[in-house]
Amino acid sequence: MEFKQCLKERANFIENILKEYMPKEEGHQKTIIEAMNYSLSAGGKRLRPILTLEACKIVGGNEADAIPFAVAIEMIHTYSLIHDDLPAIDNDDLRRGRKTNHIVFGEDMAILAGDALLNYAFELMLSTSINKENPQKYLKAINEIAKASGIYGMIGGQVVDVQSENKEISKEKLDYIHNNKTAAIIIGCMRAGAIIGDATEIELESITKYAKNIGLSFQIVDDILDIIGDEAKLGKKVGSDIENHKSTYPSLLGLEKSKEIAYELIDEAKKSIKLINKDIRFLNGLAEYIIDREY
Amino acid sequence: MEFKQCLKERANFIENILKEYMPKEEGHQKTIIEAMNYSLSAGGKRLRPILTLEACKIVGGNEADAIPFAVAIEMIHTYSLIHDDLPAIDNDDLRRGRKTNHIVFGEDMAILAGDALLNYAFELMLSTSINKENPQKYLKAINEIAKASGIYGMIGGQVVDVQSENKEISKEKLDYIHNNKTAAIIIGCMRAGAIIGDATEIELESITKYAKNIGLSFQIVDDILDIIGDEAKLGKKVGSDIENHKSTYPSLLGLEKSKEIAYELIDEAKKSIKLINKDIRFLNGLAEYIIDREY
Repeated sequence: MEFKQCLKERANFIENILKEYMPKEEGHQKTIIEAMNYSLSAGGKRLRPILTLEACKIVGGNEADAIPFAVAIEMIHTYSLIHDDLPAIDNDDLRRGRKTNHIVFGEDMAILAGDALLNYAFELMLSTSINKENPQKYLKAINEIAKASGIYGMIGGQVVDVQSENKEISKEKLDYIHNNKTAAIIIGCMRAGAIIGDATEIELESITKYAKNIGLSFQIVDDILDIIGDEAKLGKKVGSDIENHKSTYPSLLGLEKSKEIAYELIDEAKKSIKLINKDIRFLNGLAEYIIDREY
Repeated sequence: MEFKQCLKERANFIENILKEYMPKEEGHQKTIIEAMNYSLSAGGKRLRPILTLEACKIVGGNEADAIPFAVAIEMIHTYSLIHDDLPAIDNDDLRRGRKTNHIVFGEDMAILAGDALLNYAFELMLSTSINKENPQKYLKAINEIAKASGIYGMIGGQVVDVQSENKEISKEKLDYIHNNKTAAIIIGCMRAGAIIGDATEIELESITKYAKNIGLSFQIVDDILDIIGDEAKLGKKVGSDIENHKSTYPSLLGLEKSKEIAYELIDEAKKSIKLINKDIRFLNGLAEYIIDREY
């Protein structure tokens, strides 16, 4: 099967499991759950859950065991977007062509819906793990997600990103932001999937390197698309980084050099998973897709 | 030892372990960690962590095993206060006589500091549990905390509270708010402590009933103190519920009937732990303290 078709099918699969795992919009909690599900069902590439399941499968694990983790990681990603969009942070009215959460549900509900999604992600991972045969393995996997989404991961990157607004920053600081705001969660979800799949140390190390490299490359491509991308395809305005005087790979190193680095990282990613003795075609395809994507 | 002295010593013990477990204010994350620790070190009764440890101890468990959970529960309580105080929710400038988090660190950092505390609470519980002898027990305990703080617990209560502002609500709805916004976390932290302490089913049931009763009574007393309390002792303005047209126990049932119910709940709480064959003096004292407190 062609890679793009395969990616589409997996994204559809994720859409279905998301629907299945979303809390029911009923009872006293109706409104907050509507707010959670509104953003959770807003589409997107669903890369993180796809990578969670693939990491589990590629080391010989049972994909089904990783499903609650795939859902949880998308909930965490979604909560971070809801809070990012708030008036006090990025003040965005549109996301993926739809009104942002606080525009539809109000700022108070958007704050609480974000909190609720983060909390629910843990509820889901924990409640589905307590009766498993190897509870320690699941504790380890949940721990990977928790580390990746906290102050030494995603939130840490987001904070420095917020603090760097309208400031020229060093490449070191930019790398810190990209590695934490974006790559940490990609690393965390793939490590969690691999741990659930009983990865060997070597497999876990290979997958970690792959995730780190595609994560940074993904963010550099985002920076590039904000300059040369097609607004219609991206579903958002381009040029916002320049408008906000944001330091990016292109602003610090130029467009050509940025592309070059993005390609090198993808090569590194592909190299690192060669050690895995399984069918790595999907992960190779995904690495190439990340750099060739138009949105 | 007199109960009040004992409570004070335990609160001091909690202050010390909080300091020990707080993340270090260094690196790129310095500001966000300062914001987290600012609110975490703002004092308060520390009831939830005290109850976590006592629940573990009273069933014969090793208190030390529950310490990360006691810290985590106070982090979750603190994050909920930071987000409650935000301009979009309660818009409070002062909390426990100190400026609220967003006044000191800005609204963006306060949102992220709240997120970070919730996430860090899970990081702490998970990372300290992965190498324990009985990982399933710890998974169950973390799951109790996660359930208690989510949409079917604390957040659920908070949402309905926000939605009920300036509205007359039914006693059923008020009970839902009190039971979820306040009691759920008290139940969750005591159940987690008891599970870590290897409670029997009967002990767990007794502790759950105790927590449920003191939790609701605690909130009714809060409602009462907002009418008859001493501002200096409370460290906050009284009369805010009336000012905000908030439905409370006194507004729905009158002051005397509310006191009566609060006392009945405390009696129920004390009755429910009689089944535990251990030294229950501290929990009895605490139940009485909850109703006799002046702040």
